[in-house]
Amino acid sequence: MELELIRQIRDRAAVLSSSQYLSAIRKSIGDDCAEVIPSEDMDILATTDTMCEGIHFGLSYFSPFQLGRKLASVNLSDIAAMGGIPRWALLNAEVPKKLGNADDPFWQAFLQGLTSRLAEFNAMLIGGDTVAAPSSRLALTLTLIGEIEKGGAVYRSGAKNGDLVYCSGYTGESACGMELLAGPGLAHLIPRPACRKLMHKHLDPEPRIMLGRALAAAGISSLIDLSDGIASDLANVCKESRLAAVIDAGILPVSRLVRLFCHNTRKKRGEFLPRATWEYVLCGGEDFELLWTVSEKRCLDAEEAAIKVLGHRPAMIGRMQEGSGCYIDTGHGLVDISFRGYEH
Amino acid sequence: MELELIRQIRDRAAVLSSSQYLSAIRKSIGDDCAEVIPSEDMDILATTDTMCEGIHFGLSYFSPFQLGRKLASVNLSDIAAMGGIPRWALLNAEVPKKLGNADDPFWQAFLQGLTSRLAEFNAMLIGGDTVAAPSSRLALTLTLIGEIEKGGAVYRSGAKNGDLVYCSGYTGESACGMELLAGPGLAHLIPRPACRKLMHKHLDPEPRIMLGRALAAAGISSLIDLSDGIASDLANVCKESRLAAVIDAGILPVSRLVRLFCHNTRKKRGEFLPRATWEYVLCGGEDFELLWTVSEKRCLDAEEAAIKVLGHRPAMIGRMQEGSGCYIDTGHGLVDISFRGYEH
Repeated sequence: MELELIRQIRDRAAVLSSSQYLSAIRKSIGDDCAEVIPSEDMDILATTDTMCEGIHFGLSYFSPFQLGRKLASVNLSDIAAMGGIPRWALLNAEVPKKLGNADDPFWQAFLQGLTSRLAEFNAMLIGGDTVAAPSSRLALTLTLIGEIEKGGAVYRSGAKNGDLVYCSGYTGESACGMELLAGPGLAHLIPRPACRKLMHKHLDPEPRIMLGRALAAAGISSLIDLSDGIASDLANVCKESRLAAVIDAGILPVSRLVRLFCHNTRKKRGEFLPRATWEYVLCGGEDFELLWTVSEKRCLDAEEAAIKVLGHRPAMIGRMQEGSGCYIDTGHGLVDISFRGYEH
Repeated sequence: MELELIRQIRDRAAVLSSSQYLSAIRKSIGDDCAEVIPSEDMDILATTDTMCEGIHFGLSYFSPFQLGRKLASVNLSDIAAMGGIPRWALLNAEVPKKLGNADDPFWQAFLQGLTSRLAEFNAMLIGGDTVAAPSSRLALTLTLIGEIEKGGAVYRSGAKNGDLVYCSGYTGESACGMELLAGPGLAHLIPRPACRKLMHKHLDPEPRIMLGRALAAAGISSLIDLSDGIASDLANVCKESRLAAVIDAGILPVSRLVRLFCHNTRKKRGEFLPRATWEYVLCGGEDFELLWTVSEKRCLDAEEAAIKVLGHRPAMIGRMQEGSGCYIDTGHGLVDISFRGYEH
């Protein structure tokens, strides 16, 4: 059964992956290794993310298609956060008994979601490993290999004293969406369209590949994707750049949907406003927006580059300064929010 | 706790990985992606293997050091099976509560085993992901990126009609070793030194990197590593090469240790000789020897290349012919053994 499942996944993935980018692939699924042809004058990027049922997702609220798509997106987002181009992916699946049938429509839909999302960014599935799960829960790992112009990658460590901090979109929406999907009966408290938008942000985040490319070309100083929340991810930029960051609460954009969610669910969740809203905006994970720092001299170039891709102006939310840690300026003083992370 | 564990693994791995090969690594663990510099005129190889507690290993008989080493070895073996050079690795760990303490000596020993085994072949750990496990069992994935001269890789699909089939060493020993380690009280039936040797073959297989390089240079036609057993792996060569293979039972080497194991445990296991012996030799997995095909014209070149690396003559075990499937010639006719695989 297991061998049969591997074969079917392999055959389906091979068909689904036969796109225009085959020319750089000498050997895909079906040998001891995949073999690909790297582009000249480019470096290789590599990232990997594991998603476990019951920890990172539930099969009650993720369709197999969405799950495949999200597994691709979270890895694509890491390539975006270097300014790179995604190319080749490997999938590891730990398959529980309930999904061990190779003909289960789950696998076709999952692979369709995964490979089509990769294909949107010209990346392809070239290999992987399928094993029996050690428990009743599905676990998935995707490893994504990308390329970047030599010297063109943007690291977390490049922020300079005085650089401005920008963010590509609202934060906290994905965390609200997750509570609506997985939490105890909150959805009826939110108007249907708002509810759907928040859930969508969690189920189907947008990897900012084109934005990452544009920002890298515009000479920004550091770049990270918001997977763990601003408080945690910006604190990582601070740590790697040996600086402090101060976010200005007065200009940090707060999503109307996050406000609505927090307002309408406050009684049921026993939380106080506006504290709850700030928790989501600063500590909510998985929005996969990009956060970058840029010198004042280059900030307008970067803004223009971002506007071209996003269709809206990115938000300037704070500034880098001497010191260490990540703070928010509330107007009544600085509050240290470093690594006020979001753990699954 | 989880974030702390990630940080500790990262810091330890970074220290353990600071070897002479740093020059090709622009960014290691600690950014959104790792960034490496590929060599000129080489293609990229990629392989990945997942090992789950209770399926592929038990913590009662694998030390953490051995486990890290084996995770490296099984991936290294896949690079060997293309004739390639291992370079960069990414680790995914699904960490159960029992190992969730970052100070648990398990992690230091595991990473030491993993990184030192990689370093033996000049490969380095450059990234990964650590998540909470969805169950009480540890699951580990390693993805290994390698390099190969353009046009130099040896595939499963290259075997030609009339080619000879060779194997680098005994098969079945690892499967016997696994039963001694994990099975119900067989060890006392085998003399101590033999027992130790069989267990060692399972716990610490040798990835045949140098042999793969030498064989690829000697012009062999196809190559695979024996992870699932001859019956399954040679059947894959047949399938990919659209040929049949016939193994000659009269010349297939049978390990003295496998004979001893089967003889001494036959009563307890209720199996008949010599059938049981052949089961281990043909269907036992995880020996990680290399199996290759080569034309008669080039077979002596390949033999000599193998002798230089192995210190012993590799065994010629059969021949490729028209047709499909993998057979053994018992002297009383052909028996189809295709995909008589070993499933965990």
